[in-house]
Amino acid sequence: MATSRIMSRRDLDFLLYEWLDAEALTRRPRYAEHDRGTFDAVLDLSEQLATDFFAPLNQSTDAAEPYVGDDGRVVLPPEVARALAAYTGSGLPASVFDHELGGLQLPFVVHQAGSAFFQAAAIGVFAYPFLAEGNANLLVAHGTPDQVRRYAAPVVEGRWYGTMALSEPQAGSSLGDITTRAVRQDDGSYRLTGTKMWISGGDHELGENIVHLVLARTPGAAPGVKGISLFIVPKHLVHDDGSVGERNDVALVGLNHKMGYRATTNTLLNLGEGLTTPGGTPGAVGHLVGEEGRGLTYMFHMMNEARVSVGAGAVALGYTGYLHALDYARVRTQGRALQDKDPAAPPVVLTAHPDVRRMLLAQKSYVEGGLALILFCAHLVDESRTAPDPDDARRAERLLGLLTPIAKSWPSQWCLAANDLAIQVHGGYGYTRDYPVEQFYRDNRLNPIHEGTHGIQALDLLGRKVVEGDGAALRLLGDRLRATTRAATGAGGDAASYAAQLDRTWDDVLRVTGVLWAKGDPALALANASLYLEALGHVVVAWLWLEQLLAVGGRSGGFYDGKRAAVRYFYAFELPRTGPQLALLESLDTTTLDLDPDVL
Amino acid sequence: MATSRIMSRRDLDFLLYEWLDAEALTRRPRYAEHDRGTFDAVLDLSEQLATDFFAPLNQSTDAAEPYVGDDGRVVLPPEVARALAAYTGSGLPASVFDHELGGLQLPFVVHQAGSAFFQAAAIGVFAYPFLAEGNANLLVAHGTPDQVRRYAAPVVEGRWYGTMALSEPQAGSSLGDITTRAVRQDDGSYRLTGTKMWISGGDHELGENIVHLVLARTPGAAPGVKGISLFIVPKHLVHDDGSVGERNDVALVGLNHKMGYRATTNTLLNLGEGLTTPGGTPGAVGHLVGEEGRGLTYMFHMMNEARVSVGAGAVALGYTGYLHALDYARVRTQGRALQDKDPAAPPVVLTAHPDVRRMLLAQKSYVEGGLALILFCAHLVDESRTAPDPDDARRAERLLGLLTPIAKSWPSQWCLAANDLAIQVHGGYGYTRDYPVEQFYRDNRLNPIHEGTHGIQALDLLGRKVVEGDGAALRLLGDRLRATTRAATGAGGDAASYAAQLDRTWDDVLRVTGVLWAKGDPALALANASLYLEALGHVVVAWLWLEQLLAVGGRSGGFYDGKRAAVRYFYAFELPRTGPQLALLESLDTTTLDLDPDVL
Repeated sequence: MATSRIMSRRDLDFLLYEWLDAEALTRRPRYAEHDRGTFDAVLDLSEQLATDFFAPLNQSTDAAEPYVGDDGRVVLPPEVARALAAYTGSGLPASVFDHELGGLQLPFVVHQAGSAFFQAAAIGVFAYPFLAEGNANLLVAHGTPDQVRRYAAPVVEGRWYGTMALSEPQAGSSLGDITTRAVRQDDGSYRLTGTKMWISGGDHELGENIVHLVLARTPGAAPGVKGISLFIVPKHLVHDDGSVGERNDVALVGLNHKMGYRATTNTLLNLGEGLTTPGGTPGAVGHLVGEEGRGLTYMFHMMNEARVSVGAGAVALGYTGYLHALDYARVRTQGRALQDKDPAAPPVVLTAHPDVRRMLLAQKSYVEGGLALILFCAHLVDESRTAPDPDDARRAERLLGLLTPIAKSWPSQWCLAANDLAIQVHGGYGYTRDYPVEQFYRDNRLNPIHEGTHGIQALDLLGRKVVEGDGAALRLLGDRLRATTRAATGAGGDAASYAAQLDRTWDDVLRVTGVLWAKGDPALALANASLYLEALGHVVVAWLWLEQLLAVGGRSGGFYDGKRAAVRYFYAFELPRTGPQLALLESLDTTTLDLDPDVL
Repeated sequence: MATSRIMSRRDLDFLLYEWLDAEALTRRPRYAEHDRGTFDAVLDLSEQLATDFFAPLNQSTDAAEPYVGDDGRVVLPPEVARALAAYTGSGLPASVFDHELGGLQLPFVVHQAGSAFFQAAAIGVFAYPFLAEGNANLLVAHGTPDQVRRYAAPVVEGRWYGTMALSEPQAGSSLGDITTRAVRQDDGSYRLTGTKMWISGGDHELGENIVHLVLARTPGAAPGVKGISLFIVPKHLVHDDGSVGERNDVALVGLNHKMGYRATTNTLLNLGEGLTTPGGTPGAVGHLVGEEGRGLTYMFHMMNEARVSVGAGAVALGYTGYLHALDYARVRTQGRALQDKDPAAPPVVLTAHPDVRRMLLAQKSYVEGGLALILFCAHLVDESRTAPDPDDARRAERLLGLLTPIAKSWPSQWCLAANDLAIQVHGGYGYTRDYPVEQFYRDNRLNPIHEGTHGIQALDLLGRKVVEGDGAALRLLGDRLRATTRAATGAGGDAASYAAQLDRTWDDVLRVTGVLWAKGDPALALANASLYLEALGHVVVAWLWLEQLLAVGGRSGGFYDGKRAAVRYFYAFELPRTGPQLALLESLDTTTLDLDPDVL
């Protein structure tokens, strides 16, 4: 089959229209101005812009890393600004926002599908509008109308950018330990002092301003996460009429030099360093969002979408790597078939070798399975916002909460594994910078770390999401999964046998979950939470592969046969991996708990 | 425990002396001049030189990649030459060679242990002497006395370097398809024309000369591997008195730009390009090694050692990454214990978190297990050469042949996984080039590719080594493994329960191997050979962990407790992974065979 070298539009269409019935969303008031035609136009436009403006600079922006010039400003290759101007000019930064803010009110699932082209083409460049969107999204949800007008609207228009400034050098996974201080002033504003680390897009000259959303502590606030508030800290102060004024006291201390994702500046920022002294008072000017002490609550409110989008980036990198490996394997010749003993016969293409096919099928099952997971979750975001029945909306939100750590972690692990296999298919060539797959592998290695590491996601899943509401979310997932296996059993054939395998594994998951929490001891229950995350991730993706198989039905053609091959692979090679993981969890193994780290 | 930041000398001592009884080798004639004192001196010297001269340039040589200067010569940072001068000055290049060649006649296992320090410190720099040693080794085994004197002796002295020039742009895994031509001249020499790709150390100015060992075809030779001959092609021609003469027609076409391993030049070379025309006749001057048509046989004769050494490099990179992660996890604080609800309590070190302990234990089990595998195989090399009983020597060689694809592949997979975990333990810091672990990960990614990919190793294991002699090698392995489980059963306690688990798994391996070959159909038997390689690798390492536990015995102390913890981890978390793999193999799954690649 012909494939796009960036993403498979055919697969996106299948998942959106033949499986998720995204078109049905247009019957809801929020999306009533849309139809399949406007959805398709967004996908067409995204593919075209990503192909024309983003893909060509992926390797060059990796090689020419951003640096700080003599004037203290960040220098990026000029083609980055050109690509972002094309993106802004298209109106896509406004995709998900309300009409009244100049937005397009696109369903999140369609936006996510379109964004995949940009993430696949040049994820380090697309990170700038990606971060800005998340920033504006949070302000729209929790800011005052004036804050939205002043700080979010220019971001939606694509004129400004934005960041999430959470981490500090000593506090990444443990945000309760941040020490940046925010002191209230007589005029209601705050002055912030402190140091923020790992701030992606924390400085650059791509727009007129950068809106930092900063977590900080007010004097006398409670220790831990309950004493944290959220502040708007613009790089340049903003006048009442929305125009950009003098520089705020947000100083770029340095850029982090990363293994990949290099087009994205990643910064160490000092607030209140004395770079400027706005109004004569020391500290960076900040404006409280919502109420004091609720900063993390606001942040977590947007966390589902942010984490699903990180997973989407991991999928996009894995997916484009797979397409590159496939293109290569179809034309590169090497060796002979095992049964062919004639050394004078011409060599065969790589796809003739079973082990290469295994590596391609594995990649396909990871990246198409991952894409299904991401779009399913993105669709749940839309459901949670627009389902006509409020109970449906609440169920969607609850299921989304359970699936979020998986949507973030599973692609970060397995689509990175796909990138590893894409290198392997290329052999020595894949290890060189003349081919793009090694960059995908380096870029994707970020995803298991940022927005909460695997270990953090595992604790979120098994320590919170699985237990809250007495297991309500897991029951919702079980209901959906069982509905799928019932339908698959009815369909008979391979689908029925996959359904039986999945039903047995789900029984195991439920039993193991019960055993883990039987004693109510978090230390014991969570000792091997990472394995639980991995196992449940494979089960969820197996379920979604069965969903895809049902959507395929009896249709003929190479595309559908490819889906059949991938689901066969996943149930034969992948789902069984969960067996030993679940058995270990059920044994309440205490190897890690018993370990005295001094003996390492 | 205090740890070296490069390698653990304590672990090397344990494996060499408390487990393998390397000292006993000194009772054999070849090693009679050695004792524990000289072995220790080699390890001391290696650690010191690696620490003082190699480790300091690892990051700088990664950042400042070799390039071709205006004069066409390769430019490397000057500190590379200084480090190699220190290595050469120490006499270590002569470690394994015969006294009559100026060698030290060290056991290979001791040499391998010492080399681990250099591989861990700066593998891309150590590659130059590493490649030279392999080159000289092959010449010593198959060259004429004059060839050895003229081309190998200067390499043993450390004055010259050497390469293995096998691959071509169109032929990597499939060497039968090489097309470089070698035409015999009246004086008995040959003239070679062709293009060689991926030649590590293929050009540089580090020594007075570079001896290329080149595979090529003579006119009228048989197609495939039987028509390939081996030639000495020096960069500079060599006079009868051994002095270096005019330039041979070996032209550097370009350097490959790699993801890692950057200090090592990797080259595209043209032979007979017309760079020079030695004696007026076109083509690069070459000298036949041995007989025409036996080039690959000679090459494969040295393959066991070369592949074990590649595995050793993978282990060293994984090992040093583990030590760095451990050092970091012991001092970096983050978060609180799960049961601690007081946000005002001080944060704990990373090793207090079970998931971090899991990641450290996993690394420990991979790198110490991998080191045991490598040293066991290196010891078999010594056994195969010096065992007093010729039957013992033959058995050692046969067992080594079986274990070689595992010794090459298992560390390439799992010590790379260790590097991945070392990054994860570091969090965001691990993704930056300010910490060394991301480089280890990039460097180590080469190892699953060169010296035969995973897929090639898998076919070698299941298609050749397992079946030859009617399964004689697998029986040898089984005898050794069963002897270990018998001893462990006798020891009782945990050792006995691990033994029972390993015995059951070995029964599975034998049964599955029989099923795979029951129909004698290579296509069916080898369809999933990579899974067989992975599963048998885990079984072998589990066996060697049990061997280590027996060597630990009842001894007390942190070091021994660490071994106990790692073996416990390996049997609980790792060995069970083989269950689904062996089950899939036993099912004779044809997913990859049935696949029509057009549907991908």
